[in-house]
Amino acid sequence: MSGVIHGVGLGPGAQDLMSVRADRLIRGARHVAYFRKAGRPGQARRIVDGMIDPQAVEIPMEYPVTTEIPLSDPRYNEALSAFYADCTDRLDDLAAQGHDVVILCEGDPFFYGSFMHLHSRLKAPVRVVPGITGMSGAWTASGTPITWGDDVLTVLTATLPEEELTRRIRDTDALVVMKIGRNLAKLRRAVDAAGRQGDAHLVEYATMADQRITPLTQAEDVTAYFSILLIHGKGRRP
Amino acid sequence: MSGVIHGVGLGPGAQDLMSVRADRLIRGARHVAYFRKAGRPGQARRIVDGMIDPQAVEIPMEYPVTTEIPLSDPRYNEALSAFYADCTDRLDDLAAQGHDVVILCEGDPFFYGSFMHLHSRLKAPVRVVPGITGMSGAWTASGTPITWGDDVLTVLTATLPEEELTRRIRDTDALVVMKIGRNLAKLRRAVDAAGRQGDAHLVEYATMADQRITPLTQAEDVTAYFSILLIHGKGRRP
Repeated sequence: MSGVIHGVGLGPGAQDLMSVRADRLIRGARHVAYFRKAGRPGQARRIVDGMIDPQAVEIPMEYPVTTEIPLSDPRYNEALSAFYADCTDRLDDLAAQGHDVVILCEGDPFFYGSFMHLHSRLKAPVRVVPGITGMSGAWTASGTPITWGDDVLTVLTATLPEEELTRRIRDTDALVVMKIGRNLAKLRRAVDAAGRQGDAHLVEYATMADQRITPLTQAEDVTAYFSILLIHGKGRRP
Repeated sequence: MSGVIHGVGLGPGAQDLMSVRADRLIRGARHVAYFRKAGRPGQARRIVDGMIDPQAVEIPMEYPVTTEIPLSDPRYNEALSAFYADCTDRLDDLAAQGHDVVILCEGDPFFYGSFMHLHSRLKAPVRVVPGITGMSGAWTASGTPITWGDDVLTVLTATLPEEELTRRIRDTDALVVMKIGRNLAKLRRAVDAAGRQGDAHLVEYATMADQRITPLTQAEDVTAYFSILLIHGKGRRP
């Protein structure tokens, strides 16, 4: 009997914002895997602090590279591809031995998640538990609804070219931008060029103790990778 | 001491996909309010079946109109505006008497939710608990990630004009369409005109017992209001 690999969404960061199903799976797990940057505890692991059974086997999966090699360098893709294949082998082996494994996924596993690169490779049976996205955490933290009536919502990554960011920011009612990190200066220029600078807010560490919401005009040029930029829709409301 | 109005996201439908925080608030609530169509049990109320304390006071808020008057008729807005104002008065009164109230919200309260029309009117203190969106439920049900790498995700409502739907469907990597209901025939023409008919799937009752995923080319022309159309992104993956 093969074990099952569970890709479990943790939500935006506050421990009690994970689903009841995720909470039960994590507390009951005998094998718990998660991604992290080498030498760091890892954000996913930090979210579940105090929830993992002390007898459980932990399986940290350490990225061989994060920002040291640019995305455009073929070595980046090669290194990550080999890494995901290796992680998949370890997880498939555990499942073949009959072990269930819980993989901790920040936010929602199927929304820009590293887990997707395992999911597409695993031979073992996989079940996915959705989670509250980081962007839901961000707009909740902002205290303002993101979309009303017929509002169009566009979700972009700040890794896109500046001209494309500008064009798409100009052409949407509501906006979410992910993967900001070192791209904040470029993103700011795009928001300015689209004439939306007065509407944009940067949300850092949404739903967590150090949550911070800053108008983009007042934000500094460097921010955490998990920061999210929001422009709220203003659509039809009775 | 004023009570607090809690806008609580229930997630996509399965009871154990609500957050631990939502679960605790709902089980502990003495006053529970929810929207429904007159004469129906209501989808939000159905999701929490068996969770509400039998001693709790239930406050159904019944829409005066749903699809009987077209959105474009000014009487639609007037009827709903008066309705939301009336609900707000009842909730503010309860809070003024010191009662906390839990408002049940399908999906995420700040993402196209009726709760937003109370939130913008309430005088009482309000706290919002985010939820797993219906669209996360839908793409999880589809078994395929929605966005990879630099994929652009566009979220549309099928209530938009056909030409705008076509233009935006042509110009995105990944797509989510909400509020489909009677607009499915128009939406299908827009997807066809954008050349994306082979990529589109209709997800009904995601995460619930009667969950169904149908290629758009095989779907019938009428579907539930809470159906969601998906086109999955195909972006960069190592």
